Amino acid sequence: MNNNLQIYNTLSRTKEKFEPIVPPHVGMYVCGPTVYGDAHLGHARPAITFDVVFRYLMHIGYKVRYVRNITDVGHLENDADEGEDKIVKKARLESLEPMEVVKLFTDRYHKNMDQLNVLHPSIEPTASGHIIEQIELIKSILNNGYAYEADGSVYFDVEKYNKDYQYGKLSGRKTEDLLENTRILAGQDEKKNSYDFALWKKTDPKHIMQWPSPWSDGYPGWHLECSAMGAKYLGEKFDIHGGGMDLLFPHHESEIAQSNASRGHDPVKYWMHNNMITIGGQKMGKSLNNFITLDEFFSGNQELLTRAYSPMTIRFFILQAHYRSTLDFSNEALQAAEKGMHKLFNTIEIIDKLVPTEKSTIDVRQFESRLYEAMNDDFNTPITIAYLFDLSRLINQVNDGKEKLTKEDISFVKELFAVFIFKVLGLKNESGKNSDLLIDQLMNTILVIRNDAKLNKDWATADRIREDLSKLKINIKDTKDGSEWSFE
Amino acid sequence: MNNNLQIYNTLSRTKEKFEPIVPPHVGMYVCGPTVYGDAHLGHARPAITFDVVFRYLMHIGYKVRYVRNITDVGHLENDADEGEDKIVKKARLESLEPMEVVKLFTDRYHKNMDQLNVLHPSIEPTASGHIIEQIELIKSILNNGYAYEADGSVYFDVEKYNKDYQYGKLSGRKTEDLLENTRILAGQDEKKNSYDFALWKKTDPKHIMQWPSPWSDGYPGWHLECSAMGAKYLGEKFDIHGGGMDLLFPHHESEIAQSNASRGHDPVKYWMHNNMITIGGQKMGKSLNNFITLDEFFSGNQELLTRAYSPMTIRFFILQAHYRSTLDFSNEALQAAEKGMHKLFNTIEIIDKLVPTEKSTIDVRQFESRLYEAMNDDFNTPITIAYLFDLSRLINQVNDGKEKLTKEDISFVKELFAVFIFKVLGLKNESGKNSDLLIDQLMNTILVIRNDAKLNKDWATADRIREDLSKLKINIKDTKDGSEWSFE
Repeated sequence: MNNNLQIYNTLSRTKEKFEPIVPPHVGMYVCGPTVYGDAHLGHARPAITFDVVFRYLMHIGYKVRYVRNITDVGHLENDADEGEDKIVKKARLESLEPMEVVKLFTDRYHKNMDQLNVLHPSIEPTASGHIIEQIELIKSILNNGYAYEADGSVYFDVEKYNKDYQYGKLSGRKTEDLLENTRILAGQDEKKNSYDFALWKKTDPKHIMQWPSPWSDGYPGWHLECSAMGAKYLGEKFDIHGGGMDLLFPHHESEIAQSNASRGHDPVKYWMHNNMITIGGQKMGKSLNNFITLDEFFSGNQELLTRAYSPMTIRFFILQAHYRSTLDFSNEALQAAEKGMHKLFNTIEIIDKLVPTEKSTIDVRQFESRLYEAMNDDFNTPITIAYLFDLSRLINQVNDGKEKLTKEDISFVKELFAVFIFKVLGLKNESGKNSDLLIDQLMNTILVIRNDAKLNKDWATADRIREDLSKLKINIKDTKDGSEWSFE
Repeated sequence: MNNNLQIYNTLSRTKEKFEPIVPPHVGMYVCGPTVYGDAHLGHARPAITFDVVFRYLMHIGYKVRYVRNITDVGHLENDADEGEDKIVKKARLESLEPMEVVKLFTDRYHKNMDQLNVLHPSIEPTASGHIIEQIELIKSILNNGYAYEADGSVYFDVEKYNKDYQYGKLSGRKTEDLLENTRILAGQDEKKNSYDFALWKKTDPKHIMQWPSPWSDGYPGWHLECSAMGAKYLGEKFDIHGGGMDLLFPHHESEIAQSNASRGHDPVKYWMHNNMITIGGQKMGKSLNNFITLDEFFSGNQELLTRAYSPMTIRFFILQAHYRSTLDFSNEALQAAEKGMHKLFNTIEIIDKLVPTEKSTIDVRQFESRLYEAMNDDFNTPITIAYLFDLSRLINQVNDGKEKLTKEDISFVKELFAVFIFKVLGLKNESGKNSDLLIDQLMNTILVIRNDAKLNKDWATADRIREDLSKLKINIKDTKDGSEWSFE
């Protein structure tokens, strides 16, 4: 096990040595999508960021249980956690049962994640599937005196909580400031203070998504699901909680509060947050209506895009920035990422063709420790990629005859590239390893054999090959420059 | 809307005219997989059967909400609904959290269904996600006096129920016979009668999958989930309930009982059951240990298989029997199905090449009504396919110049084939465009050439082929039975 991993903990605002609670096990929880629309670039970033965390932790020897949830209920319309449920609203617009919307967009999200080569999490629980666990959590918060009931709804009592704990410890926000910044919204007159947040909301009888509870027929507040499901599958205190920086407040702040209020301690050792993707400096998101869906990137079919970009280009573009930096979208930046990625994949092909020598003139072994140091430094993928580019340049020099490598060093470099590019960064070669290329290559092999047979006047073999290919609906056409092939 | 559809209703044991409760809407519920292992041929049959029902209903104009559940808890080890929960057992064997097993096999099931071109259902609810709904159902059955509590567990009181309703109306079984046939099992001494079934089972505190309830910490009985989820998403009475014939008793019989006991009426208008797949006349299934998984069919990597079969071959094989007939697996039957399917796809290609004439010498228009009649006759896919073969023969005669068709008739036939083969039967053409298959075939071609070279003692050619393939990262291994190849 590699013991030098440092993780930036949002809670302490410093990089800390990573020491899991029960090694070699690591419990990681990441906030997944609210499934009421197609996934866009803003969904790709946390998915890819924590996919690399998941991959790297496994690579250095940890046994990781990775939980990423599906929010299929209870995510309300605006940040203040009031208004109409997003999924119910979409369902009414399209005359669908809410769970039909959930199924449709969950399936599409999964397809996009597969395209981006994001590994499946170990468990993918849904909010609607854990209402009992959320009700139990509300009960214990009420029992401990940190919540109150008002007309069938239950609210978290931030003022009461603040006497014993600190609401704002993660985000650095102060409750005085929150009071001033909170808008007046329907239903909040039930609350003691505007910053109190809903644990349970009573609904009118016509509302589709509702469940019975000790307080009313209704549904749980959004912040509850992660507290309930994280504890259920990873224990009451687990190692890593990840998510986008936009979830830091109020969502993750409230998760900490709910855990302290129910169990008397924080839920998570390391809080990790990926920064936002901007477009012209502005946050990209559904509510701002300036988002580009992943399907649009893959097809190029969107006015902001000059052309299509492959899933791996999106992945590489995201990994070329550190996850805690903002990342600004532009066609130029994506095209530069694509070019860089192709350079790395070209290098992998070049490695196979290098001619080994007796002695190496350059030191490639030093790159192993550099690459691990980069990843150990809070998963610094841009530095990791920069080292891979350095190594790529050296290999091209070897290929040009300017430098030399032994057979052992060539194998070493090949393995290093494979580990970091495929296994850790999770890239795959879209152009090189695909089936169409291999079919081309196999057809070339067959045509060369046939050509040799013809040169040797072995007409029987040449004809047999033509007939065999004909059964596969492949036609061969002999020209003066050689043979061409095509599908029937 | 096509109004001549007849469906065989297991409840009435006759074909009945299909008249949905609220046309043009149709609610259909089908029992999905228990996700504790890989899907086998026995899973493919109900999935494909009801996929065709779903497709045909939509094709003739209905708006179908199709619910297919995932059983992720509560399916006990043996038919008598006692013993250890199947998913918990698997989890313990592999030291996994049960929900990790659920995620793994749900994902694999989805992949197999996509390979078989099975459309996604509209909603795919999980048993563990609907514990509250199941508890509410138990409460109302208890309130109505058709269940009793015993040491924290709740059982359905079949004798009491039989005074007002008829347990056995679906399966035709009589409770007297059931008493004699039920084995004595642990825990059943709590029951008044051995045929009473569990609605709620108390667990010991160490048991992983458990939820709080008014009676004990425990988990719901298996039969409950479909009653609860069917009603939630399709209403308290809906149109079609499907599943394998092995689920008829006790599962579906108990669903009817639960619905009557809680709501005073039957849950379903049309009960549909697909028959079993046998292997040498014996039922194929996990518990009999004679099953072949779908992945094994697709790879050919199983001792009962003489070679690989594509997903569409499996689909066509299943559709060549009526869903209410048993279907016996053999390599010969699969190869015959493959051949037949290829014939149909060849015909589609031939249609494009036909030369139209002024007048038609044959009547192809009659096939439209024949095909609809076949599908309207309880989804009779073998007859549908037989008509497609008849039509295929005629088209080949046109191609051979023995018969003639006008331009309009050619277009008509082309459209008819497309509707029934692609849209209704849900087949797709694999042969032309399947890269992996083609790679296999090209490699076979190359290995045959190389083998001939060796037989001719042309060692230079044999070695050259090996070297060329090695550059493509393909290794050849010579064995006494021939040559094998694999990627590096």
